[in-house]
Amino acid sequence: MPDRILVINPNSTEAVTRGIDVAMEPLRMAGGPAIECVTLADGPPGIENQGHVEQVVPLIGTMVRKRDNDCSAFVIACYSDPGLHAARELTTKPVLGIAECGILTALTLGQRFGVISILRKSIPRHLRYVGQMGLNDRMAGDRAIGLGVVELADEARTFSRMAEVAAELRDEDGADVLVMGCAGMARYRDRLQRHVGLPVVEPSQAAVSMAIGRSRLNWS
Amino acid sequence: MPDRILVINPNSTEAVTRGIDVAMEPLRMAGGPAIECVTLADGPPGIENQGHVEQVVPLIGTMVRKRDNDCSAFVIACYSDPGLHAARELTTKPVLGIAECGILTALTLGQRFGVISILRKSIPRHLRYVGQMGLNDRMAGDRAIGLGVVELADEARTFSRMAEVAAELRDEDGADVLVMGCAGMARYRDRLQRHVGLPVVEPSQAAVSMAIGRSRLNWS
Amino acid sequence: MPDRILVINPNSTEAVTRGIDVAMEPLRMAGGPAIECVTLADGPPGIENQGHVEQVVPLIGTMVRKRDNDCSAFVIACYSDPGLHAARELTTKPVLGIAECGILTALTLGQRFGVISILRKSIPRHLRYVGQMGLNDRMAGDRAIGLGVVELADEARTFSRMAEVAAELRDEDGADVLVMGCAGMARYRDRLQRHVGLPVVEPSQAAVSMAIGRSRLNWS
Amino acid sequence: MPDRILVINPNSTEAVTRGIDVAMEPLRMAGGPAIECVTLADGPPGIENQGHVEQVVPLIGTMVRKRDNDCSAFVIACYSDPGLHAARELTTKPVLGIAECGILTALTLGQRFGVISILRKSIPRHLRYVGQMGLNDRMAGDRAIGLGVVELADEARTFSRMAEVAAELRDEDGADVLVMGCAGMARYRDRLQRHVGLPVVEPSQAAVSMAIGRSRLNWS
Amino acid sequence: MPDRILVINPNSTEAVTRGIDVAMEPLRMAGGPAIECVTLADGPPGIENQGHVEQVVPLIGTMVRKRDNDCSAFVIACYSDPGLHAARELTTKPVLGIAECGILTALTLGQRFGVISILRKSIPRHLRYVGQMGLNDRMAGDRAIGLGVVELADEARTFSRMAEVAAELRDEDGADVLVMGCAGMARYRDRLQRHVGLPVVEPSQAAVSMAIGRSRLNWS
Amino acid sequence: MPDRILVINPNSTEAVTRGIDVAMEPLRMAGGPAIECVTLADGPPGIENQGHVEQVVPLIGTMVRKRDNDCSAFVIACYSDPGLHAARELTTKPVLGIAECGILTALTLGQRFGVISILRKSIPRHLRYVGQMGLNDRMAGDRAIGLGVVELADEARTFSRMAEVAAELRDEDGADVLVMGCAGMARYRDRLQRHVGLPVVEPSQAAVSMAIGRSRLNWS
Repeated sequence: MPDRILVINPNSTEAVTRGIDVAMEPLRMAGGPAIECVTLADGPPGIENQGHVEQVVPLIGTMVRKRDNDCSAFVIACYSDPGLHAARELTTKPVLGIAECGILTALTLGQRFGVISILRKSIPRHLRYVGQMGLNDRMAGDRAIGLGVVELADEARTFSRMAEVAAELRDEDGADVLVMGCAGMARYRDRLQRHVGLPVVEPSQAAVSMAIGRSRLNWS
Repeated sequence: MPDRILVINPNSTEAVTRGIDVAMEPLRMAGGPAIECVTLADGPPGIENQGHVEQVVPLIGTMVRKRDNDCSAFVIACYSDPGLHAARELTTKPVLGIAECGILTALTLGQRFGVISILRKSIPRHLRYVGQMGLNDRMAGDRAIGLGVVELADEARTFSRMAEVAAELRDEDGADVLVMGCAGMARYRDRLQRHVGLPVVEPSQAAVSMAIGRSRLNWS
Repeated sequence: MPDRILVINPNSTEAVTRGIDVAMEPLRMAGGPAIECVTLADGPPGIENQGHVEQVVPLIGTMVRKRDNDCSAFVIACYSDPGLHAARELTTKPVLGIAECGILTALTLGQRFGVISILRKSIPRHLRYVGQMGLNDRMAGDRAIGLGVVELADEARTFSRMAEVAAELRDEDGADVLVMGCAGMARYRDRLQRHVGLPVVEPSQAAVSMAIGRSRLNWS
Repeated sequence: MPDRILVINPNSTEAVTRGIDVAMEPLRMAGGPAIECVTLADGPPGIENQGHVEQVVPLIGTMVRKRDNDCSAFVIACYSDPGLHAARELTTKPVLGIAECGILTALTLGQRFGVISILRKSIPRHLRYVGQMGLNDRMAGDRAIGLGVVELADEARTFSRMAEVAAELRDEDGADVLVMGCAGMARYRDRLQRHVGLPVVEPSQAAVSMAIGRSRLNWS
Repeated sequence: MPDRILVINPNSTEAVTRGIDVAMEPLRMAGGPAIECVTLADGPPGIENQGHVEQVVPLIGTMVRKRDNDCSAFVIACYSDPGLHAARELTTKPVLGIAECGILTALTLGQRFGVISILRKSIPRHLRYVGQMGLNDRMAGDRAIGLGVVELADEARTFSRMAEVAAELRDEDGADVLVMGCAGMARYRDRLQRHVGLPVVEPSQAAVSMAIGRSRLNWS
Repeated sequence: MPDRILVINPNSTEAVTRGIDVAMEPLRMAGGPAIECVTLADGPPGIENQGHVEQVVPLIGTMVRKRDNDCSAFVIACYSDPGLHAARELTTKPVLGIAECGILTALTLGQRFGVISILRKSIPRHLRYVGQMGLNDRMAGDRAIGLGVVELADEARTFSRMAEVAAELRDEDGADVLVMGCAGMARYRDRLQRHVGLPVVEPSQAAVSMAIGRSRLNWS
């Protein structure tokens, strides 16, 4: 039985995959599952609307089928959890989404979570998903920094906007824990947490953490 | 400006499309929008799992783009509302889903709606959607007849199971209005309503009813 | 069988009824139901508190009984939906309320609706109704323009306040669709939608749209 | 300042008023408010549908206005709380409804309340009200004994049906506290509580209990 | 059978107990239950975090057992309702919490309640409790004045902060009724209600009001 | 920095601790955190009511403080999550509860979870907690096997009752994933999952899985 978690970045931006890969480092343990991060070269540069979400679903399906024999768990590393329920029909291995696991982990760190999104148009999509998860009563708010996935590489501008939005979620919406609403924000987690004074969940780390246990326990 | 509602049956079963087309008859009015029903020949025979849902999304997108110039509104005639939010990004015309409109219409006919589904495995998918709509508190239950889309053509067996499930939704779950959870059930509506003594919503009719107004008002 | 929708304005302000009547124009089709708008001469000039709501209930009941033979559907054109459930006990024809249908229609146009009310004291009444509908999780907010029903005739002042409140609902409360919280606001819909950049639902139009289908399908 | 609670039975059945009056006995204290129970002679014999509810609203309003000077609080003793919010607009004195107070009191006696209703057709009306109160998550169920208000005088038949329904609410719906869904059931409370082994709330007693404090504290 | 309500202040600050005792005055009636207020000398000066809550639970249990024979009802007079459900297991007499009863009473005075808390860190604890009560949909907000229990004795500073917070709850969060989130705020109720123009619930008064009825009716 | 998860069984039944310890085996990795299971010798034999819950809170606090220097995370291994929020105030290390994590993990395995409880009297306590978590809409039901913690050692009787209850949760309540509602049920997980045909979450495994990631990431 393989012991390998495949983290699928469904956008085609290698810098995002590299950022996730770096974020995985603390979760790599001797005797634990390998953690491999892959990019979907045929995906869009960023997943920024519902069309992008739908576009990558078959690509994720293809990847899951192709790697099903040598992986023990899959993580879909996009905050829209594209194709999550479809992928679960394709394999008996655990498949986890980073939005799902990021939010669930946040529930253990605070009573009301705030989400830092990339674009304003992402928010209704996120709200639909929080409703689907039955978690409206635990959400404080969802606010956008107004930068697309590719623009997240501009560190100064990105951090400055994240800090502003984090403070609004804390002070105006009453969040006591924050979730990063994009896999491309991983590098900013530690700094943002210190800055805002609230726990900040990096959702790819949250999902792979849960995948390690699921992989070891062989639950699906 | 065109005045035509395109009703898209995303499965490839022509009998389902014909059933919908017959159900549209009362909604065709002189001076009102034309109502045209099309089959997605490349869709699966029935949409019975999440994979089927995802499979038809790009097909629906292609159809919406192709017919955008000669239609004033679109209806996606599958109770999973596949690709609904993606299609809304492709056109400025109204796009309505039959699950959405079937349930919303049911809310005007009773306090707790029950859903008659085709297969047990459809139920978690439906529950996710009701959660996304924020309507958990109005749902009485969702029960399956245990027949696939193609099997719905067997009238005696289908009606018999629908009657049983309708009675359970009424008597055990407390539903006071029912929604048919598949576009392929249209032909049974009148008979089932008389049999069970509760209002029964045929969701393609509910969606096209709302599309007529939206088409006339040019709201999107 | 008659094919006529009776739209009942339960306040006595004829200007409101005329405004509704104009708003109905796009929904009148050669082969579709007649749409007749009537004023309850014995109602108050505007329905602005719970006492006004209760006062018009028997008047609506009288009207429904009187016109039951020559109408195929009824619409109660006041955003408090006075006497809706009582009227449904008096006739086998469909009876729809504009608050109910305005909100349900808004659910197909955005994820969180905001309501533009006339007076601050209307808001708790609206909140009770949204709770009764089970739709708290879809509401972004409800804000008042601070003008009574009769004052809505002052166009400059009314539009200016509606634009302010609409912007607050969009920017502070996160609404992505708006519902006009009074039948007397119909004339401002098109202009407000362009101004605020969000879909705006005029609830009498929403209700009559749904009534057309219900009238044709003979569902009740 | 008067110190008198007026308990208004909005139906015309004197036996119901007498039953309430007897139930008030433990709540009459030297130095405490007088508790006077009145019958609305022009009300229907029982309030069994929405039309009956609406019919008594103006009668209640008339009574509240008439007695406003010599009463310190009002209780509307019908489980549909007819005219509750309208009456609150007519007086600065507290006005409480027995459904409201019966349910709120039940929340201090168990985690999920069950309601024993008179007629099946009352249930959707009750559900609308529980939704309006925002209490769906605390309700276990609502079941009807199938007897009208006047039939409640038949003791053997009534108690037998109440015991059956109470057991179903406890065993099938998971209720751990029960609320009597009609002011005419007061005489059966003690016996039913012993029989079913769960706390049973008699809602007129619950409302007058709360009214005593409100009357003393002069809160409104 | 004794007729005495024991109001337990679980913190050791006598000034808080005296404030509660004064607030009880209107609820003392010649023929009604005695109302006795006691201080838990071994409690902390104020209950300001979860550790304080847990610390007083066994002390409350000891008090309930000790006084069970000469009391007919117990009220736990701390807005965290420490040990409420544990105390209910120790006695057949009614045990009520002031948070519970304060909130339930507020539901009869407005549609959305706001809570005035002492410290920001209390808010997540309060939110957990409102969730446990199933009342998220009725809460407008919870805001802190930033003063500990002992600091509430500073009248000018306390009232000034309460007035600010009350206005924010009314104007920014939409509260139409307020609940004082600490037993030590009792003396400010009348003045605050006049100042803010909304009903203000003092929760110890609310709880003892309900306890009077429960004591008389012998419900538990 | 230590890399050790302390799993605290707050009851005094060593057999339960041993069962948990065995269940941890798959989660022990060469380079991962040590997982140590301890028994609270001063706890009750089983935690079966709210009094037991409160009784162990200070014992857990003492243990957390004592082991804070040599542990990187704590897990409270009782399905009532006793003292969870109090313990979080005592340490900067992560503290997780098995009810919390068991339920959150179940949300990734199905849409509606069912809980298998030990005793009927546990159910209202569980429901309060699910409400506090804001997860009512995801719960299918909670049913008791009617055996206390110590009786769980009787394998034949326990498994037989678990199988019955699991089938009721699946067939009558519509659960598509189950959570074991006691740390003492660990040994039955694999067998029960095969028997009932739904995923079964053993909550101590779920919590330690999440603690591994949290320990590695140093989030708190």
